[in-house]
Amino acid sequence: MNLSEMAARAKQASRSLRVLSNEVRNNVLRDFAWGLAEQADTIISENALDLKEAEENGMSKAMLDRLMLNRSRIDQIAEGILQVERLEDPLNRVLEERTIDSGIHLKKVTVPIGVIGIIFESRPNVTADCAALCFKSGNACVLKGGKESYRSSLAIVNVMKDALRKHGVSEDAVMLAEKPSHEETQKFMEDRNSVDLLIPRGGRNLIRAVVEHAKVPVIETGAGICHTYIDDTADLKIAEKIIINAKCSRPSVCNAMETLLVSSRIAEFFVPHIVSVLKEHNVQIYGDERACALAEGLYPGTEQNWATEYDDLILNLVIVDNVQQAISHIETFGTHHSECIVTEDIDNKNAFFAGIDSACLYHNASTRFTDGFEFGLGAEIGISTQKLHARGPMGLRELTSYAYHLEGKGEIR
Amino acid sequence: MNLSEMAARAKQASRSLRVLSNEVRNNVLRDFAWGLAEQADTIISENALDLKEAEENGMSKAMLDRLMLNRSRIDQIAEGILQVERLEDPLNRVLEERTIDSGIHLKKVTVPIGVIGIIFESRPNVTADCAALCFKSGNACVLKGGKESYRSSLAIVNVMKDALRKHGVSEDAVMLAEKPSHEETQKFMEDRNSVDLLIPRGGRNLIRAVVEHAKVPVIETGAGICHTYIDDTADLKIAEKIIINAKCSRPSVCNAMETLLVSSRIAEFFVPHIVSVLKEHNVQIYGDERACALAEGLYPGTEQNWATEYDDLILNLVIVDNVQQAISHIETFGTHHSECIVTEDIDNKNAFFAGIDSACLYHNASTRFTDGFEFGLGAEIGISTQKLHARGPMGLRELTSYAYHLEGKGEIR
Repeated sequence: MNLSEMAARAKQASRSLRVLSNEVRNNVLRDFAWGLAEQADTIISENALDLKEAEENGMSKAMLDRLMLNRSRIDQIAEGILQVERLEDPLNRVLEERTIDSGIHLKKVTVPIGVIGIIFESRPNVTADCAALCFKSGNACVLKGGKESYRSSLAIVNVMKDALRKHGVSEDAVMLAEKPSHEETQKFMEDRNSVDLLIPRGGRNLIRAVVEHAKVPVIETGAGICHTYIDDTADLKIAEKIIINAKCSRPSVCNAMETLLVSSRIAEFFVPHIVSVLKEHNVQIYGDERACALAEGLYPGTEQNWATEYDDLILNLVIVDNVQQAISHIETFGTHHSECIVTEDIDNKNAFFAGIDSACLYHNASTRFTDGFEFGLGAEIGISTQKLHARGPMGLRELTSYAYHLEGKGEIR
Repeated sequence: MNLSEMAARAKQASRSLRVLSNEVRNNVLRDFAWGLAEQADTIISENALDLKEAEENGMSKAMLDRLMLNRSRIDQIAEGILQVERLEDPLNRVLEERTIDSGIHLKKVTVPIGVIGIIFESRPNVTADCAALCFKSGNACVLKGGKESYRSSLAIVNVMKDALRKHGVSEDAVMLAEKPSHEETQKFMEDRNSVDLLIPRGGRNLIRAVVEHAKVPVIETGAGICHTYIDDTADLKIAEKIIINAKCSRPSVCNAMETLLVSSRIAEFFVPHIVSVLKEHNVQIYGDERACALAEGLYPGTEQNWATEYDDLILNLVIVDNVQQAISHIETFGTHHSECIVTEDIDNKNAFFAGIDSACLYHNASTRFTDGFEFGLGAEIGISTQKLHARGPMGLRELTSYAYHLEGKGEIR
């Protein structure tokens, strides 16, 4: 079946998903999770074939590790599905309710989006994750993962399809693309009749390619050039703790800090200190001219550095004269993801929050908290860096739309 | 100034709009409204030049009337702006607030979207309307209206710019495109750096062209193939009232009915009756085979008719066997705008509401109520027929996004 046929069948299935009760959806998800545990051996042996081929094709060790499934990882995946199952039903929530002037009773209620296309790279756990989140929110999904993980993903999707069939739900609710051609993928991204939303999950190039070629609405996720600004009134113990955490605790993720901005009023004593602490943590630093003059061993940075998401133990260090310069730097080079100000000055905090157009703004806390679980959403399908529909961590609620239900007694206008 | 420069300057202005108080925004809007009344003569004489040229170019009488401004129409426009001014501030609303597990205090607050591009056809009142709605919601806007109304729109925008200057706000907050070339417009619709949202307002071809060529997110508005289904249990007095209202009260608007579906159980006596009533209202009717067999003087309709938005005193009449067939017809031929079921059977009503994926679903009331003012939104920039961000009537709130504000005391993860 080609990708267009899959999308059309998913659209058909989405019509029946809208009317499923939360109970049926939960039963399917429980059987999905249990099925993964039961069929772990099959999944692991399919995964072994993927791994073998990837190794032969020269995949790096780090990437092979991301691709690898073992029993404990499968148990984790199953546990994640059960967590989604236990979340509050995001559908049929009444967002607003009132009698309008005409006498008609108006209710604004949450409904599924319809068909969600998710384009991601090679981690097979993303397959299970996305299938569970989309299904819990009443959406059909078409998943297009990396070719390297196709067998593993197919084994996982087959377990989901078993669970769907068992409960009388169309197995077209979850579709896995079968190594589609470039042309097929292009057509899919333009198919506004069948696909309601595209979510690219992965690196910047993947996201850029989807945004560039899609005609279906896209939610951009995950590009994170996050900043931390240390104001001259900052509590420097807090500042140091936050800097090390934001840069070093998990440098590969999108909520890690890429650029540290320091007020020129404290730079002379704070920069040499923080540079030496960062070096103890093996962080390589690109500084602007003033920073390089204040500490040893910094590489001279350029605007290209300020615009780079390293996802690694690399940091930009830039001196600014005040909060307005910090704001201006962030607005120029940031990706509207997460930014932090460390300050004891409420006016500077307010200026920072008002002046910066990012999804998440922190005062005296690490940007690493930008995460659906940390925010209490119970799940996360990605972190949106755009401003329509969903912003910041996207959980189940962000996978819904709404409709107006209007009850009358023969009202006319 | 070309359109790209306008967009870049609007982006710059949008940064200062974010921090304006509601009071300043309201003062600007009041001066905008008063200025329109004061400068009515100038606007009318500019409009006369537009009208003269349009007439020479052979514009139809109906279109000339839409283009024409006189003192009473200008007063109406000014009154509309004052209505927007009086609406509740859509910014800085706290949507959610809680302390998350880490101890950080989380607030989800509404913020402007940024720069909104609005592409519309020739009515100059749309210029004032969009400028006021965007400004009240803290957004800069770039307006691209019809060439035929350029002088009228410019005169209106100049009044707004006077009001902005008077209150120390950047006049780049409202930009009017100066008859841009096709290439300029294309570049504008791809300019994700400067433009955050595109709203096409106008006919189907305009909307399709924008969706086809934009890389900036688009909200589709206004395409309305609306249906009314008369169930076999309907109160037929209510049914008749709703049918005549939905078709005849204002056939040119998007919430007017285009297709009437009638249950086969009541068709034999109801169809001849309603056809004769509709004919008294000068409605031309395309029927399916069964309808044509039941009443005189129907034109035979095809699937192409079912998929046509007439915006005129023309109607499709289709017989269906039950609510499921009605749902299936609507899902196949509709535009997800507004649909109505007339029934006294609660199960059929529930099936209709659950089975149809439209922005507005009515039970025993005319689809003509789909409107921002009728819904109590206080204003309307369009009616969205898509499912992301905003659905149905879009008021001020739908012109905002949100951000997370997080207050910590040195929390790290």
